[in-house]
Amino acid sequence: MGEFDLLARVRERLPQPGPRVRLGSGDDAAVSVPGGATATSVDALVDGVHFRRQWSSPAQIGAKALAVALSDLAAMGAAPGEAYVVLGVPADLDEDGCLELLDGLARVAVETGTTLAGGDVTRAPVLTLAVTVVGHAERAEDLVRRSGARPGDVLVVTGELGGAAAGFQLLEQGKDGPPALIARQLEPKPRLAEGRMLAKAGATAMIDLSDGLGGDAGHLAEASGVGLKIDADSLPLADGVTDMVLAVSGGEDYELLAAIPRDRVPDGPVTPIGEVVAGEGVEIRLPGGELLEPTGFDQLD
Amino acid sequence: MGEFDLLARVRERLPQPGPRVRLGSGDDAAVSVPGGATATSVDALVDGVHFRRQWSSPAQIGAKALAVALSDLAAMGAAPGEAYVVLGVPADLDEDGCLELLDGLARVAVETGTTLAGGDVTRAPVLTLAVTVVGHAERAEDLVRRSGARPGDVLVVTGELGGAAAGFQLLEQGKDGPPALIARQLEPKPRLAEGRMLAKAGATAMIDLSDGLGGDAGHLAEASGVGLKIDADSLPLADGVTDMVLAVSGGEDYELLAAIPRDRVPDGPVTPIGEVVAGEGVEIRLPGGELLEPTGFDQLD
Repeated sequence: MGEFDLLARVRERLPQPGPRVRLGSGDDAAVSVPGGATATSVDALVDGVHFRRQWSSPAQIGAKALAVALSDLAAMGAAPGEAYVVLGVPADLDEDGCLELLDGLARVAVETGTTLAGGDVTRAPVLTLAVTVVGHAERAEDLVRRSGARPGDVLVVTGELGGAAAGFQLLEQGKDGPPALIARQLEPKPRLAEGRMLAKAGATAMIDLSDGLGGDAGHLAEASGVGLKIDADSLPLADGVTDMVLAVSGGEDYELLAAIPRDRVPDGPVTPIGEVVAGEGVEIRLPGGELLEPTGFDQLD
Repeated sequence: MGEFDLLARVRERLPQPGPRVRLGSGDDAAVSVPGGATATSVDALVDGVHFRRQWSSPAQIGAKALAVALSDLAAMGAAPGEAYVVLGVPADLDEDGCLELLDGLARVAVETGTTLAGGDVTRAPVLTLAVTVVGHAERAEDLVRRSGARPGDVLVVTGELGGAAAGFQLLEQGKDGPPALIARQLEPKPRLAEGRMLAKAGATAMIDLSDGLGGDAGHLAEASGVGLKIDADSLPLADGVTDMVLAVSGGEDYELLAAIPRDRVPDGPVTPIGEVVAGEGVEIRLPGGELLEPTGFDQLD
C-alpha cells in the first residue's frame, strides 16, 4: 500500500469541509479562517496503552481517537472546528482496515460538526493515532480554563460516572455484561453541547474526566488554588455500576466536571456533586461522613 | 517516570510563549488568538522510518521533527505560530533523553519564533513524534497553494539540492564526508523567511522538497494542471554533490520549489530552474537534450 494511494482513497471518502476550511487535505497545509480565539489540543492513542485491537473494531478505534480529543474542546466550551490525524499503520493492518478506521473517525466528525482537514500516514510498529483538534470561540475569555474556580461555586458533573471503568472490567475479565457499559469504554462521547452550555451559563472552571473524578478534580483544585468537597452519595452512577470506587477512581468516562456560581447552575443535564472551598485538595465524603480516598485503578492509560 | 512528572519538567523548560498564545500547556487545550487565516500541518516521525536513533542525538531528532513540520508552513508562505507535540517514548529512552529531545525541539522553536503550546506524552514501542504546526496570515488568499502555477511562470528553488541524500548515503555506508552534507540529512532547516518572501513577491504555487524534486514537482504540476520543464544543468547542487540524480530524486532537502510570474522573480536567494508550460507532467532535461527520469531512491521515508 503506497502512502499516496491510501491518502487519495481517504480524501475521496472525507465528508464535506465546514465553512471555516478554505483548503483541506492534499496541499502542504490546510487553510482555515478561525474564530476570534482557538482552543487546540492533541491526544495520542497507542495500541496496548490506550486501546486493545482485540477488543475494538478499527472503526471503534478511529471513533474513540477523535472523541477523546474532542472531549478536551468540550472542557473548554469551544465549538469544534477542525481535526488533523496522524495514523501509524502496523504491518498487520491492511488498507481496508485503515479505511474502516478512518470511516469511524469520519462518523464522529460528521456527528460533531468537525472537519477532517489534514493528516499524515506512516508505517509504525503498532497501531498509533495522534489527533489534533481545533475549536473556536469568539473571544479567548469565552473559553473556560481549569483555573477559575472560586470558593462558594457549586461543583457539577454531566452524565453518569463509572460506566467506562465497569466496561473495562467486563472486557478484562471476559465477562458478559450490560452492552451500555462496554459501549462507555469502547465508544466514548465528547460532551460538546454540555460544555458550551456550561461555558455560556458562566462556569468558572471546567475539566473533562479522562483520568477519573478523584484525579481530575485534583487538577482543577490545584489549577484554581482552591479545595473541593464532593458528596459521594450525590455522584450519578451509570446504570449497572454499584461500586462507588469506579465512579471516583475509574477514568475514561469523558464527562465534564465544572465549577459554577450557585445562582448560575443551569436547569440542565448536570448533577450538583459538591462545592468549592478555600484551601486545597479534594475531599470525597461517604454518607456516613467517612472520607473516600481516590485510588490508583488498573485500567488503560 | 510518570507522565505528569515529565510534563511538569517539560513545562518548566519551555521558552516564553508568543503574543498570540493566551494559555499554553497544562490545561485541557491551549488558547490562542489567530491571524485572519491559519495554515495547519501535521507530520509524524517514527524511528526506523524517518530517522535512526543510532545516527542522531535525541536533540537532533527533536529539532528535525519540528523543522520538517515547519517546512510545510514555509511552503505556504505562512508566519510560524504554534506547535503541538506528541511524544511516544520507548522503554529505552529515559527522562533525560526525553528532555534532551524536547530541548532540541525548543531550540528550533526559539530560532523560528514558534511557541510550543501543547502536547501529549505516551508510551510507545519505538520513539515516535507527531508535530502539528499552526502558521498565520492576514488573509487566506495570502497563503500559497500548490495549485496556482500558470504557463509562462518561472520555476525557482531556494538553496541547494542533493545534500540531504548525499548525507544519507554517507551515513548508510558508514563513510566520512563533508559535515555539511551530514548536517543536511540530520538537521534540516525550514525555509520560512524564503517562503514568506516568495509569497509576498507573488508566487503562484509552492511546495517544499521533502520527497525529492522530481516527485514534488510532479505534485505541483498535477495540482496546478500544468506541465513543468526543468533544465537539469541549472539545478543548484550542494557543495560536495556531484551526482545530479541526488538533486533530482533524493528527498529531504526541505528547500522550496515555487512558480512565479517572470516579472516578479525576486533578486534574492532563489535559482531559476525552468518554466511552467501548458500540458502535464515534469520534464527534466540534461544539457545534451536527453531526458533525466526521476527514479525511486533508497532513502528514509
